[in-house]
Amino acid sequence: MCIKFSHPTNTTKTEHTTHNVTKTMSNNLILHGNMLSQPTRVILWFCHLNHIPIQFKNVQLHKAEHKSPQFLKWNPNGKIPVLEHAQESSFYLFESQAIVHYLRRLFIVDQHSHWYPEPSSVIDATLSNIQQIAKIDSYLSWHQNHFRPGVAGYAFAKYIGPSSFGRKFTEEQVKNAHVLCLQQLQQLNDYWLTNSSTNNDQRSMFISGAAEPSIADLFCYSELAQLMIVDEWNAKSGQFSTAPLVAPYQNVVKWMKEIEQVNGYSKIHDALLKIATKRFGGGQSKL
Amino acid sequence: MCIKFSHPTNTTKTEHTTHNVTKTMSNNLILHGNMLSQPTRVILWFCHLNHIPIQFKNVQLHKAEHKSPQFLKWNPNGKIPVLEHAQESSFYLFESQAIVHYLRRLFIVDQHSHWYPEPSSVIDATLSNIQQIAKIDSYLSWHQNHFRPGVAGYAFAKYIGPSSFGRKFTEEQVKNAHVLCLQQLQQLNDYWLTNSSTNNDQRSMFISGAAEPSIADLFCYSELAQLMIVDEWNAKSGQFSTAPLVAPYQNVVKWMKEIEQVNGYSKIHDALLKIATKRFGGGQSKL
Repeated sequence: MCIKFSHPTNTTKTEHTTHNVTKTMSNNLILHGNMLSQPTRVILWFCHLNHIPIQFKNVQLHKAEHKSPQFLKWNPNGKIPVLEHAQESSFYLFESQAIVHYLRRLFIVDQHSHWYPEPSSVIDATLSNIQQIAKIDSYLSWHQNHFRPGVAGYAFAKYIGPSSFGRKFTEEQVKNAHVLCLQQLQQLNDYWLTNSSTNNDQRSMFISGAAEPSIADLFCYSELAQLMIVDEWNAKSGQFSTAPLVAPYQNVVKWMKEIEQVNGYSKIHDALLKIATKRFGGGQSKL
Repeated sequence: MCIKFSHPTNTTKTEHTTHNVTKTMSNNLILHGNMLSQPTRVILWFCHLNHIPIQFKNVQLHKAEHKSPQFLKWNPNGKIPVLEHAQESSFYLFESQAIVHYLRRLFIVDQHSHWYPEPSSVIDATLSNIQQIAKIDSYLSWHQNHFRPGVAGYAFAKYIGPSSFGRKFTEEQVKNAHVLCLQQLQQLNDYWLTNSSTNNDQRSMFISGAAEPSIADLFCYSELAQLMIVDEWNAKSGQFSTAPLVAPYQNVVKWMKEIEQVNGYSKIHDALLKIATKRFGGGQSKL
């Protein structure tokens, strides 16, 4: 399947400053991924929000297409997503954070953008600006080293491993994975969404401490969102912030409600929401 | 212990472009770390190479200083290193990759620098330039998700866990950790140090594909270097590239020899080399 990932039509068009790279570049970016993959969702959400033209090719995980010899040439780790930048000699890039940075540099979406507020010229940076970016960078590493293993580990042990890969986990293993997951939610609540304000007069809702979300928030929400197919909640509401799993974490709940208002939320989470609705519908498990 | 981390005296002084942040900044950067920690070494090596003034405060891990209430306020994960930027209201930053990016932005060491070759103005970027940075970013994520767990996992199971933390591992656990470690070395050899040339005429020695090392190489070497206290080798030579453990990986060996010539290598690895010499001396284990 190869579809062009369409852009939002109801938002103000972002103006991209262009350099010679984008001026000579046709629409030749392809993301090889899967909408049930957290990093795939982040990249497509970022492209959607910033009007970056990209094609999406679905990688069929149940057919192990990501372990094929061709795919392993692109990413020897056999993991999605991979960005293909088709040129005379194609450029392949893996690791989702690197892909987002590559796209923002190609399309110069940084300047004056809350998604990653690097100024267009380094000498224009202020200390507050550099510290805001540092907070995003710090989160993005913490995300890989702590949040992702905790959340994805629980999702895999509780539901995805048994249902999609025939893997069995003992009750104790699931319980331990659940504890690790809750520890990450607690730190998200108590540190990243509490201690993040860079403006004492106005409490920030977002990870960078700014008044608007950054790529750190997109990565964080997309990771958390996979849990919508794991534990029971009222999936018909379409808002995962209402799930009992996250209810004890009030800062997280408030922040989730904000992110669920970001343009493209429903479109990006459509595949997950369909599975969640099938499983949990109006609050009663149907499995 | 609080020492000022001195600068190299035999190298040409790096010229920093300054912006208002650095102009008004006194020498008020403190790294709380330990020279046996891989990320601590990277940050101090980066500062040494780029003439960034920083103080180093040794965190005594055996006294669990990194788990103290004060330290946990700086980093709730209780891990070193933490950068303190002392100001009217101090700024604390954890996650080593974020710290290196923070320092390079504060001191504007990027432009024309091979360590992270971001141009000073985004519209000056070329496609080759953006792809070289993307390769560094891709490595830095892979480093956290694959290389670090593999190498540090083996170091901990084989030597550091039992010798410093009283942890016991079975022979099978050590063997499995060894296998995972070698898988990472194989991928470093076969992908990152083979497929990396962005110039077809000249084979690159380094991860980014450029003719000079980047921060990706510093992070990679510093991680690998902890193995110098784990397995037997001739530590008196001072060059870990001669160790039997890495010998099967010829691209890795060649690359290590290059990195071992980088200014500050001996100084940064002094603490590790002393332990290694005590353990392995001229090739015979003394333990």
